[in-house]
Amino acid sequence: MTNAVQLDETHDPARRSFVETANGSATDFPIQNLPLGIFSTAADPQPRIGTAIGDFVFDLKRALGSDEHLAAPIRQALQQGTLNALFALGPMAMRELRRRAADLLGQGSAANDTRRRASELLTSIADATLHLPTRISNYTDFYAGIYHARAAGALLTPENPLPANYKWVPIAYHGRASSVQVGRGMVRRPLGQRPPTVAGAAPGFGPCERLDFELEMGFYLAAGNRLGNPVPIAEASQQIVGYSLLNDWSARDIQRWEMFPLGPFLSKSFATSVSPWVVTSDALAPFRVAALARPDGDPRPLDYLFDAADQSHGGLDVHLEVLLSTAQMRAANQPAAAILTSNAKYLYWTPAQMIAHHSINGCNLLPGDLIGTGTISGPSPAQLSSMLEFTAAGSRPAVLPSGERRGFLEDGDEVTFRGRCSLEGFAGIGFGSCVGRIGPVDAVIAGNNHA
Amino acid sequence: MTNAVQLDETHDPARRSFVETANGSATDFPIQNLPLGIFSTAADPQPRIGTAIGDFVFDLKRALGSDEHLAAPIRQALQQGTLNALFALGPMAMRELRRRAADLLGQGSAANDTRRRASELLTSIADATLHLPTRISNYTDFYAGIYHARAAGALLTPENPLPANYKWVPIAYHGRASSVQVGRGMVRRPLGQRPPTVAGAAPGFGPCERLDFELEMGFYLAAGNRLGNPVPIAEASQQIVGYSLLNDWSARDIQRWEMFPLGPFLSKSFATSVSPWVVTSDALAPFRVAALARPDGDPRPLDYLFDAADQSHGGLDVHLEVLLSTAQMRAANQPAAAILTSNAKYLYWTPAQMIAHHSINGCNLLPGDLIGTGTISGPSPAQLSSMLEFTAAGSRPAVLPSGERRGFLEDGDEVTFRGRCSLEGFAGIGFGSCVGRIGPVDAVIAGNNHA
Repeated sequence: MTNAVQLDETHDPARRSFVETANGSATDFPIQNLPLGIFSTAADPQPRIGTAIGDFVFDLKRALGSDEHLAAPIRQALQQGTLNALFALGPMAMRELRRRAADLLGQGSAANDTRRRASELLTSIADATLHLPTRISNYTDFYAGIYHARAAGALLTPENPLPANYKWVPIAYHGRASSVQVGRGMVRRPLGQRPPTVAGAAPGFGPCERLDFELEMGFYLAAGNRLGNPVPIAEASQQIVGYSLLNDWSARDIQRWEMFPLGPFLSKSFATSVSPWVVTSDALAPFRVAALARPDGDPRPLDYLFDAADQSHGGLDVHLEVLLSTAQMRAANQPAAAILTSNAKYLYWTPAQMIAHHSINGCNLLPGDLIGTGTISGPSPAQLSSMLEFTAAGSRPAVLPSGERRGFLEDGDEVTFRGRCSLEGFAGIGFGSCVGRIGPVDAVIAGNNHA
Repeated sequence: MTNAVQLDETHDPARRSFVETANGSATDFPIQNLPLGIFSTAADPQPRIGTAIGDFVFDLKRALGSDEHLAAPIRQALQQGTLNALFALGPMAMRELRRRAADLLGQGSAANDTRRRASELLTSIADATLHLPTRISNYTDFYAGIYHARAAGALLTPENPLPANYKWVPIAYHGRASSVQVGRGMVRRPLGQRPPTVAGAAPGFGPCERLDFELEMGFYLAAGNRLGNPVPIAEASQQIVGYSLLNDWSARDIQRWEMFPLGPFLSKSFATSVSPWVVTSDALAPFRVAALARPDGDPRPLDYLFDAADQSHGGLDVHLEVLLSTAQMRAANQPAAAILTSNAKYLYWTPAQMIAHHSINGCNLLPGDLIGTGTISGPSPAQLSSMLEFTAAGSRPAVLPSGERRGFLEDGDEVTFRGRCSLEGFAGIGFGSCVGRIGPVDAVIAGNNHA
């Protein structure tokens, strides 16, 4: 493994935690991970910053909010109810915090005190309420999965599946920030206009009939940049504090009718789900890989998008998986079915390239902004990461273990994303899950992260 | 005039203010207007809520922040440094506040006290710093100007200028919230990729060569709606607290290359300018007009977009004007040249229809969200409201009084939007101005509303 990213004892697979469920290969959250999130409990309903360790949330505010080993700005940021202020301090601060949390949660002397305060500092994840990691000021969604762009393009414009700009421009659009939600709840089927069945006729109107997911990763920004000051590609990775899973729910019928000429709008803005835990760039250091190899004939990225270090390890090796369960399956106690897998390494553009592109025009990025990668499909048919692609727009429905068939999602269907990093010589770490269950169009949504 | 909107003594043209520059027909800000904004002064740099009266800002926080005539939530909202909390109270609260401010600024007994405190409560607008009215969580830009859609479409797809969905779907896209700025400052020419000169060749890269403005209006939202709960068209106008001018700066070369298939991104996100004053729906009540008459053959709006009251007075009669001055003109003391006029009444979709559409899929709108109408061109060639349109993509350059020619904007060019409502029997009211001067690509931007 050649890797310019800094590895140290916190990446040592031999490290163990006194929290027993954090040890062994079954957990997404060993002591080598320590992702950041926002949680609250029945006893203390104030949202605050925590990290996941085994089956528990560790209260970072209580444990480290006045810890003198940490720089003062970190202690101050730990008092907040969102991660915006902490993220604004950048990846090196996340690194400092992760090291200190690992000390407390390990098996050394610092851990003894922590273990004594366990009832105060550790809450079962199952008992915690998880909130959005940041107050998201801006959400941008890229289109960096070339296998997705090709598969989706083949359905819409078969003669020319990949747009002419694709290998030059990291294509993106602004998404809706207000409807990003933590992926544990219900996603209401949207109402909207559907394409006319005959050209020139009136459009249909009603509940979406082609409801879909899109398997993506998301990442969160550090301090960002001032208006008019682009982020150079060589500095772009320092703007990424961590990653999550992201489901870009999509209403294909609404999308097809509305998107010309200004792009997707209502077909996406009804909901976007993110996993509650932000896995830090620091924890992911062992799992960096080279950017996707460009086949012969593909152009070299323009200078503002090219950085040798980014090309050699700006990609991420994250194994991704999508599971589906239906109401009938759950009633029959059948487990969710794994319907497809993919990997973040199939992205044509790296996250650093996305940031350099996003800001090249001077656009200011803000701390805690969320960026989606775009749908991450892979080269094989089992790696097509939306229903649109793997059922060929519903024409080849998936057959589930229950015998049910699905072209698109039906009410009661629950979609779960998982992500996991594995590499010999390192402890495996994971992203937890990003879950959403489709509710009927007349469902009343009980909670609203942004109320 | 038939008008279902409530008019009362605050719309009486005979009313005068003790602030002399507020009287007479020259001002945009007579006592019948009282738009809301955020200002600070050298003596008190804390941003706070004010209203414009003649040539002055009237400090609403100081004057009315503990006024017992106002409901407690309004007094509380007046303590804030943005208008979000005040706007969340809705148009009826803006009405209550406008009435009370008019009492204090009029010539009656309540005004005597205010006049005595004038040095404390009134600041010359020229001496004030004006800030963004709200912390904008989400900015959405519509495409509701049918004459613009037709003119822009004729340049891109002459065989079919108007998209097939246009008369059914109020088309929109998510804009970039972070780069919305108060229109008094510099707009830096963006860098970016330009279309290849030969199909299949590499794109160009460098400063935008086709920099443009788009004449729009913006409006700000009240409390909004919960996720999953669309705003019915009959209630949509209650979600609009007020209006401003909006310049959707556009980089046409970048746009043409990047926008397929997901819409405009970097070609817009470098800057959007809004005028600093929000003219309330209440002040605009006399100037409501019927929605743009749909020609025979145009479809009736779908039910969720149709409301008889909205059709009869959901439009706005606002005369709009664009002025341009160049560095050479300013050096020669030439005034800015009026290059085109238009009117908000030419919008195909009303603001209420935009809100009903935006939320029909359940998307949650938030207090203080900004919505742009899209470019408002009119039916005549002198009403084409972007350089793209009125110079036919640069092929028929405009000739300025200085003899200079402009296909698109050059460095040093300053674009000013003005808007004004006039109707016999009412005092004319205006929007002030929305100004931006083009800076070179290597300009350092001094200020940033969102730092």
